[in-house]
Amino acid sequence: MRTSQYFLPTLKETPADAVVISHQLMLRAGMIRKLASGLYSWLPAGKRVLNKVENIVREEMDRSGALETTMPVSQPAEIWQESGRWVEYGPELLRFQDRHNRDFVMGPTHEEVITDIVRNDISSYKQLPLNMYQIQTKFRDERRPRFGVMRSREFLMKDAYSFHIEAESLVNEYQNMHDTYCRIFDRLGLDYRPVEADNGSIGGTGSQEFHVLADSGEDDIVFSDSSDYAANMEKAEALAPADNRPAPSEEMTRVPTPNAKTIAELVEQHGLPIEKTVKTLIVKASEECEADLVALMVRGDHELNEIKAEHLPEVAAPLEMAAEEEIRAVMGAGCGSLGPVGMTIPCIVDRTVAKMADFGAGANSDGEHFFGVNWERDATYTREADIRNVVEGDPSPCGNGKLFIKRGIEVGHIFQLGKKYSEAMNATVLNQSGKDAALFMGCYGIGVTRVVASAIEQNHDDRGIIWPDAIAPFQIALVPLKMEKSEVVRKTSEKLYAELTAAGYDVLMDDRKASPGVKFADMELVGIPHRIVISDRSLSEGNVEYKHRRGGDAETFPVDSIVAELKQKVTI
Amino acid sequence: MRTSQYFLPTLKETPADAVVISHQLMLRAGMIRKLASGLYSWLPAGKRVLNKVENIVREEMDRSGALETTMPVSQPAEIWQESGRWVEYGPELLRFQDRHNRDFVMGPTHEEVITDIVRNDISSYKQLPLNMYQIQTKFRDERRPRFGVMRSREFLMKDAYSFHIEAESLVNEYQNMHDTYCRIFDRLGLDYRPVEADNGSIGGTGSQEFHVLADSGEDDIVFSDSSDYAANMEKAEALAPADNRPAPSEEMTRVPTPNAKTIAELVEQHGLPIEKTVKTLIVKASEECEADLVALMVRGDHELNEIKAEHLPEVAAPLEMAAEEEIRAVMGAGCGSLGPVGMTIPCIVDRTVAKMADFGAGANSDGEHFFGVNWERDATYTREADIRNVVEGDPSPCGNGKLFIKRGIEVGHIFQLGKKYSEAMNATVLNQSGKDAALFMGCYGIGVTRVVASAIEQNHDDRGIIWPDAIAPFQIALVPLKMEKSEVVRKTSEKLYAELTAAGYDVLMDDRKASPGVKFADMELVGIPHRIVISDRSLSEGNVEYKHRRGGDAETFPVDSIVAELKQKVTI
Repeated sequence: MRTSQYFLPTLKETPADAVVISHQLMLRAGMIRKLASGLYSWLPAGKRVLNKVENIVREEMDRSGALETTMPVSQPAEIWQESGRWVEYGPELLRFQDRHNRDFVMGPTHEEVITDIVRNDISSYKQLPLNMYQIQTKFRDERRPRFGVMRSREFLMKDAYSFHIEAESLVNEYQNMHDTYCRIFDRLGLDYRPVEADNGSIGGTGSQEFHVLADSGEDDIVFSDSSDYAANMEKAEALAPADNRPAPSEEMTRVPTPNAKTIAELVEQHGLPIEKTVKTLIVKASEECEADLVALMVRGDHELNEIKAEHLPEVAAPLEMAAEEEIRAVMGAGCGSLGPVGMTIPCIVDRTVAKMADFGAGANSDGEHFFGVNWERDATYTREADIRNVVEGDPSPCGNGKLFIKRGIEVGHIFQLGKKYSEAMNATVLNQSGKDAALFMGCYGIGVTRVVASAIEQNHDDRGIIWPDAIAPFQIALVPLKMEKSEVVRKTSEKLYAELTAAGYDVLMDDRKASPGVKFADMELVGIPHRIVISDRSLSEGNVEYKHRRGGDAETFPVDSIVAELKQKVTI
Repeated sequence: MRTSQYFLPTLKETPADAVVISHQLMLRAGMIRKLASGLYSWLPAGKRVLNKVENIVREEMDRSGALETTMPVSQPAEIWQESGRWVEYGPELLRFQDRHNRDFVMGPTHEEVITDIVRNDISSYKQLPLNMYQIQTKFRDERRPRFGVMRSREFLMKDAYSFHIEAESLVNEYQNMHDTYCRIFDRLGLDYRPVEADNGSIGGTGSQEFHVLADSGEDDIVFSDSSDYAANMEKAEALAPADNRPAPSEEMTRVPTPNAKTIAELVEQHGLPIEKTVKTLIVKASEECEADLVALMVRGDHELNEIKAEHLPEVAAPLEMAAEEEIRAVMGAGCGSLGPVGMTIPCIVDRTVAKMADFGAGANSDGEHFFGVNWERDATYTREADIRNVVEGDPSPCGNGKLFIKRGIEVGHIFQLGKKYSEAMNATVLNQSGKDAALFMGCYGIGVTRVVASAIEQNHDDRGIIWPDAIAPFQIALVPLKMEKSEVVRKTSEKLYAELTAAGYDVLMDDRKASPGVKFADMELVGIPHRIVISDRSLSEGNVEYKHRRGGDAETFPVDSIVAELKQKVTI
């Protein structure tokens, strides 16, 4: 491709409303343009990258044995009513009516459609297992779309759904998808990690997220420094401290703390070490709990893990904090002064809290705390549980090493769904015994659009994008200098362009009448990994100049050897 | 691929609601399944075909120099209001609101979006010409979706849009697209014709449709038997008869015709040759016409061409027939008794009618006709024009030969739009003189989904589909007989499968435990063009059996030479 015949509207300035790097650079490099909030058009350079990601995903999914399909974007309400999600799914599910006033949704995902296909066309276990996927436009009506294509309303997703008569077959396919995802992200050239994830309300046994590591990532990923253990923050287990609880060594005293509404204020004003404090949070109880509210306690410097908390049988899901008035009615005090002494509602403490002694906590009386509280002697709890986020330095739940935390961008998710949809939608087949059996189901997603943005978040510098070879819009930038004035520059450039294109490379030749500075800046902004500069000066010695986008010194190579040289350097 | 691991739910029976062949066969061959009215899921075998069509379209569009993009399916109402189509477009435009009650449409086409991109990012003629395309899901809320994917609500379309500073550049790109489309349909292996089409209300100079010829086609395509001339029925010009009008030879007589409400009844009851009759149709006049109604006359055996009629400056567009009461008020008689004698409103006659003498027509008095009517002596007309459909045997407007008519399925359309959108949406750039100039625009569509259905309409027999090699889901069917019982059949089949797959062919090996009859029927229904049967019987002589789906006798080839033989026979 020649820049003179290409549409590459690069921008010098960073658009004001673009906050994250990938959004800024995709706009500046002429990859995308905003049509409306959360809706983006992909311009030619962006579309090239998207196609390359899509092709890698397709090739590896095909290799895995999954079968490609395409299901409609528009889906009738009836199947969503059957699955229960017509009601359960929030306003992110875009509902609309057709000209005959029939209800439809724009599909954010396709469990219902694929389950409908399978229940109609699969009647026997002999036709299973089966894994079908599509690479297709999805719509989620985000309340606040942001970060460009990272959290847009329309996006391209690869979603796969597998069906099985036996749980073991689902586990095998789940592993097959895990391995397939690893091959995909390896080929994409990204630094990524599969991490254990929470199964949500579905239960079941397996759920993993695939994260591209980047400092700008939205999610905290937890790793062991001595093993392969990796989990997302929601899932990572905080172990109980190994040591026994110390014996009490202080008397419990009631302390006036009128200006300490928070743990930080308590610590600052009263000289209490934060590790000697506990926080009490009051949440709504589940229906099966005999009380209306439940108290949750974590150490003052720890954070409640809401996902872990909402999995407790005593706690309502989704987690809902109690309102100030409710708390006051039951506890006799407001949020800043709560604690375990004299507690009348179920009280679930974090494993760490259960091992604490001589600690400070609210006195359930406004403006007062108890110091020197000790379990059993002064207060009791209902039971202990893991309800906090891990922190760096915690022992790894795998038993090896300590935990550390990095930021990640979720680009894939594999999930053992179990029978949720097959039971709701009555998707059964005859099993080996000739009886109707609901199917086991797995689902496996990759955010194709998001992969592009995450690749940029992970690979950029202050001059622009630095693409991995496999998904670069062009692998090679040919930059002739003053081509219009120099016949030898023109001829050499055209010859190299023809040879490299014939060799199967995607080459962008910058044949504009523009200064070297303008050309270099654009090629760097767009992120083309390999650059060849052809100038009178170097050609006078029979050479051209090569430079990788990641930096390092420019190297000179004889014109005659540069194609062979590039075949060594560039992976396609 | 092996049938045992594939999802190919073939059906023996034709589903009741499938009327056209392609719909029936796509359902029976397990290519598609209906999700809701006009919404279809593509199962693996169908998706393979769709992907192959898409890839050919993409390769040839890329080769043409057009640049691939992707624009959102969802489009904000504002740009449709700017172009005027928010109001103009009927209920086929699906309008919806997002969670913030903002208006959107599901894109049936993307002129507004691309024009918005271009006006924002193209500022100078130096960046032109430019042609951008996408292959993307479209939505049209058809009142009565039917014929399977032939007229569905969601479908895949390749739409391209070109922008130019000069009309000549648009004409060049239009020709480039014409040539590109010919390459595409050649590669698809379809019998097709580019035909001249009407430009509609846009005016401008160029519009061509690409039709796949099939007896079941919805459209009439008009050809010359002695030249390359081809046009759709709307566009094909009906020339004036070469001969002069004969002199009157009969007296005009008033005839009671109480039971002749139609031309057919008039001819039957009164023995008048149909070529001696005229039909009078009363339509609404345009605003610029001084009258409210206009009379249009065609010979009794001819049909009014509504498109030609609505292009008349005197006639309202879109064409609207006058109501019976309006007609009676102005003409003094109802529809079955209208004619030119005593006509008080503008009267436009077809060129053929203008050359008629001694003809019969309604007397503008209920239950009466005049016979022996002659122009000038008995009645006058305002002017003559081409307002009828051509019929077989008419002279070709190209000047060579006579016309004949075939049926076609429209699968592509190329169109010189001119400045319609650029002027409505203020898409201007600086021209060579440094002045703002509205852009010339062309648009070029291919119904990718429809191509698949049209290929079946053109290529099938009573046993199923017969795919062209280039778009067959599998080019080669390997049918081992009693594989489970014969080691040599199994080994030979596996070896051939491996070799043919390695050679780049898409091979479906039917490894089911099923009778030869069941296997042959399925492979024929699915339409795989090349079939190899591996059986103990033929292997005992060292042979396998080859047969093409189109028929002819089965041929035997030595096992060792069959791969080389297929390389001759199969095009990929």
